[in-house]
Amino acid sequence: MSSSVGVARREFVRTALGALAAGAVAPRAFAQSAAPLTERIEFKRLVAANRILAHEEVVDAFGHVSLRDPDNPKRYVMARSRSPELVEFADLIRFEQDGRSLDPGNRTPYGERMIHGAVYEARSDVNAVVHNHAYALLPFSVTGRTLEPLIHVASVIGSRIPLWDIASRFHETDMLVRSMEQGRDLAATLGRNTCALMRGHGAVVATATLKQAVIAAIYLKVNAEVQLQAMAIGTPRRLSDAEVEQSRETQFSPLALDRAWEYFCARAGVDPS
Amino acid sequence: MSSSVGVARREFVRTALGALAAGAVAPRAFAQSAAPLTERIEFKRLVAANRILAHEEVVDAFGHVSLRDPDNPKRYVMARSRSPELVEFADLIRFEQDGRSLDPGNRTPYGERMIHGAVYEARSDVNAVVHNHAYALLPFSVTGRTLEPLIHVASVIGSRIPLWDIASRFHETDMLVRSMEQGRDLAATLGRNTCALMRGHGAVVATATLKQAVIAAIYLKVNAEVQLQAMAIGTPRRLSDAEVEQSRETQFSPLALDRAWEYFCARAGVDPS
Amino acid sequence: MSSSVGVARREFVRTALGALAAGAVAPRAFAQSAAPLTERIEFKRLVAANRILAHEEVVDAFGHVSLRDPDNPKRYVMARSRSPELVEFADLIRFEQDGRSLDPGNRTPYGERMIHGAVYEARSDVNAVVHNHAYALLPFSVTGRTLEPLIHVASVIGSRIPLWDIASRFHETDMLVRSMEQGRDLAATLGRNTCALMRGHGAVVATATLKQAVIAAIYLKVNAEVQLQAMAIGTPRRLSDAEVEQSRETQFSPLALDRAWEYFCARAGVDPS
Amino acid sequence: MSSSVGVARREFVRTALGALAAGAVAPRAFAQSAAPLTERIEFKRLVAANRILAHEEVVDAFGHVSLRDPDNPKRYVMARSRSPELVEFADLIRFEQDGRSLDPGNRTPYGERMIHGAVYEARSDVNAVVHNHAYALLPFSVTGRTLEPLIHVASVIGSRIPLWDIASRFHETDMLVRSMEQGRDLAATLGRNTCALMRGHGAVVATATLKQAVIAAIYLKVNAEVQLQAMAIGTPRRLSDAEVEQSRETQFSPLALDRAWEYFCARAGVDPS
Repeated sequence: MSSSVGVARREFVRTALGALAAGAVAPRAFAQSAAPLTERIEFKRLVAANRILAHEEVVDAFGHVSLRDPDNPKRYVMARSRSPELVEFADLIRFEQDGRSLDPGNRTPYGERMIHGAVYEARSDVNAVVHNHAYALLPFSVTGRTLEPLIHVASVIGSRIPLWDIASRFHETDMLVRSMEQGRDLAATLGRNTCALMRGHGAVVATATLKQAVIAAIYLKVNAEVQLQAMAIGTPRRLSDAEVEQSRETQFSPLALDRAWEYFCARAGVDPS
Repeated sequence: MSSSVGVARREFVRTALGALAAGAVAPRAFAQSAAPLTERIEFKRLVAANRILAHEEVVDAFGHVSLRDPDNPKRYVMARSRSPELVEFADLIRFEQDGRSLDPGNRTPYGERMIHGAVYEARSDVNAVVHNHAYALLPFSVTGRTLEPLIHVASVIGSRIPLWDIASRFHETDMLVRSMEQGRDLAATLGRNTCALMRGHGAVVATATLKQAVIAAIYLKVNAEVQLQAMAIGTPRRLSDAEVEQSRETQFSPLALDRAWEYFCARAGVDPS
Repeated sequence: MSSSVGVARREFVRTALGALAAGAVAPRAFAQSAAPLTERIEFKRLVAANRILAHEEVVDAFGHVSLRDPDNPKRYVMARSRSPELVEFADLIRFEQDGRSLDPGNRTPYGERMIHGAVYEARSDVNAVVHNHAYALLPFSVTGRTLEPLIHVASVIGSRIPLWDIASRFHETDMLVRSMEQGRDLAATLGRNTCALMRGHGAVVATATLKQAVIAAIYLKVNAEVQLQAMAIGTPRRLSDAEVEQSRETQFSPLALDRAWEYFCARAGVDPS
Repeated sequence: MSSSVGVARREFVRTALGALAAGAVAPRAFAQSAAPLTERIEFKRLVAANRILAHEEVVDAFGHVSLRDPDNPKRYVMARSRSPELVEFADLIRFEQDGRSLDPGNRTPYGERMIHGAVYEARSDVNAVVHNHAYALLPFSVTGRTLEPLIHVASVIGSRIPLWDIASRFHETDMLVRSMEQGRDLAATLGRNTCALMRGHGAVVATATLKQAVIAAIYLKVNAEVQLQAMAIGTPRRLSDAEVEQSRETQFSPLALDRAWEYFCARAGVDPS
């Protein structure tokens, strides 16, 4: 026990010095950087979110969900590199916005966490981010056909879903968002929207709360499935901007949001609280 | 116990006064409004119907099924606001046709229960209503392509399936049927038909019995799935009106209806009685 | 016990007299008509076949599979009217080829058993028949597009799959094959083929053995699914008649047939023997 | 025990003499040919690979996966003829590259094992081979439309996926690769690529390690599913050759490969080690 305290103290000092050097951390955070994640409700929900997204096939072996740190808006919390289906509380790690890990165990983080950090940096209104490769979205990402909300439950995805292509600025890569520079380019394309597609890759979803992020990611996929079928038989009519705005407010209200959250928790076998 | 009786009595008085004011309630109903729902076979089937519709993915987080109250044709019974997959007997509530709840516990009802009340009001031949968002229906609802019965098991959906668009009369809304005025507009479009589609939203199904409503809602979805595929390879030939009429009579006869009900109960893990 | 013996004896006499009158039954069959179905391997396989076809979604609430009676080629064995997913040994009944039931319990038979009787009557080479409504077949049945074997595992469905329309001879009906006259019309369209589609309804599959019937029914559905997708991206090339002939012989050989049977039994949770 | 030793010794002698006659085996292998397969990690993974491929529906009743023998590069190891879903360690058999079985029990091998032997013979860089009939691949195999990597997770399938037609050289057959001559013709079409399609049949996947083979086979299917949908709504843009090369390196790196392997093992209920 004393050795782990020693490790924690050394990690604390290292992180604190690095943070001081970066000029990014207020003194109070020094103590916090070494603080383990308590089993508070927000983090339990983050684990639940991982399981739900996996169960609904919004994510598969790849993909991740994060939460802006309730204790420090310049940090975020997400799992170490592990499939969402398998994530447990012990897998959660705190990160600085630029992606530096605050994990005492120094476990391998997701290579694409910069997506999350860059969105939190650009969007003070966002507190939860999902990055996923849901298959139904990919035909839109590789053909450039516009994905738009057709059905009321999908109003939560917002009126406009831009398409980002990593090659526009970064030319030929392995397609992954590995740096803050790439993350910021994606965040710039996302703008003030809720969702953006990533060419040949997947999507990013950004909302004010974790429950909203999960629901929006699920219905982004559902809308894509419906739109694929609709385009095969005719020209689908989209919801108008006013319909999207009013419906989104209703679908994100506690009545609807909590009913959906309870339903998806039950399906994934997780506690809905 | 005495306090809940007191609550029930106060609720009874309030409801009764309101009902008297509305001129809608006969004296005998005063006593009934406070009567708890007994575990009679019709209500057990209503719970089973919820579970079957969820299992067959006719409904998901959203959607609901109701039954005209066997004790009072001006009332109907449905669950409080909860996903059908999770509904239990204790969730069932009685409603006046105009949507006023007779729930002693005053629990949150479905926001769109007016769909049900308006259909019961307009159709004395209907005793069960399903409202759902089955994904296969939505491409038809957003393209205006006509959904029509192609296969004999789907004759139960009827010959004609009109499309209702809330915006025609109510302009831009959050797409939900929140008032009796909107419900009556939908019921007017439904007319004497079994099913109607709702643009960018889903469908309503209205039949004489609960088993018929469940079977019709399931095969409405199946027919849509088959029609989507058929339209991709050619021009599907629909059943003629005479074929629909004769086949529907057969498919709704006890022999076929009970075989299907038993099958879907078994799949959903509920008692088929 | 004596009363059921009495019932059985009376039933025996009735059946025997009717059989004598029809001139269709040899004296030895009199004793057999009252004999209960022994739990021999062929009948156990018939129960397994029901479960496999349900598990693979070749049948759903509706559909049935039968076996020519090993003891009397002018009879066949199938379940009473019940969804295949639920069929048990006790549900099996013997039928005369014309559809008359030999069930001492006089339980409700499948309304469309005439499909089976008519095929056995027309085809001395056939000993097992499946009637099903697999959804992937229905787009072909309502558009008239030709379903043909594209993939080697589906060579078992044969080179040619005719389409039968009940309305050609019987005009407007409830679409069900209710009489031997209708069954014989379907059998005439089936001809010497393994499969035939039924407009707006489903298909019939007829083979020499029960295992072959189950495998052919499964791969008829698979081939349809592949063909639907292939037709969406180009013009599919079918197997040549010689390829169908050679591949079918291989796919129906014990090596391949038994491997497939064992696999589908395992999936359905039934004993493969 | 002594009789089985006697059997093993006789089998050893027979195999050794045959091997000597063929001039293909070095003396040290004589002892090895009779050595039973030890439960080493590579063979446990081979069993796991079978189960994963079945669970992900990359294979069904048919299809197989093999491993180049870690002890002798001129041999390979795969199961006896059995559906991958059911394969257990005891089913594994060693084969000479030309397909001759080294199974003391002389159990029935897969009829198409020559696919594996021919690929190992042609490709010294390949140590694992999958042959499968995944349904999403078949529309491409029968229309000649080009399957190409559209999404980054599918970069592992390589830039080019040739199509092999058995009839080009062997005219009309039962479509199975039954001889080394046919296997070599397929291997010639595969060339230096990772995957090749087989007209009206399926595909072959060849990689350096077993984990890579499983992941590539899964994402070959996923890419096909996405491409089918993309082609229905527009003209899909494929990954560039440089993107494929860079992404493949990342996706086959331990970080990504192990995360995917752990995920698919968990889904299939097998130990990921």
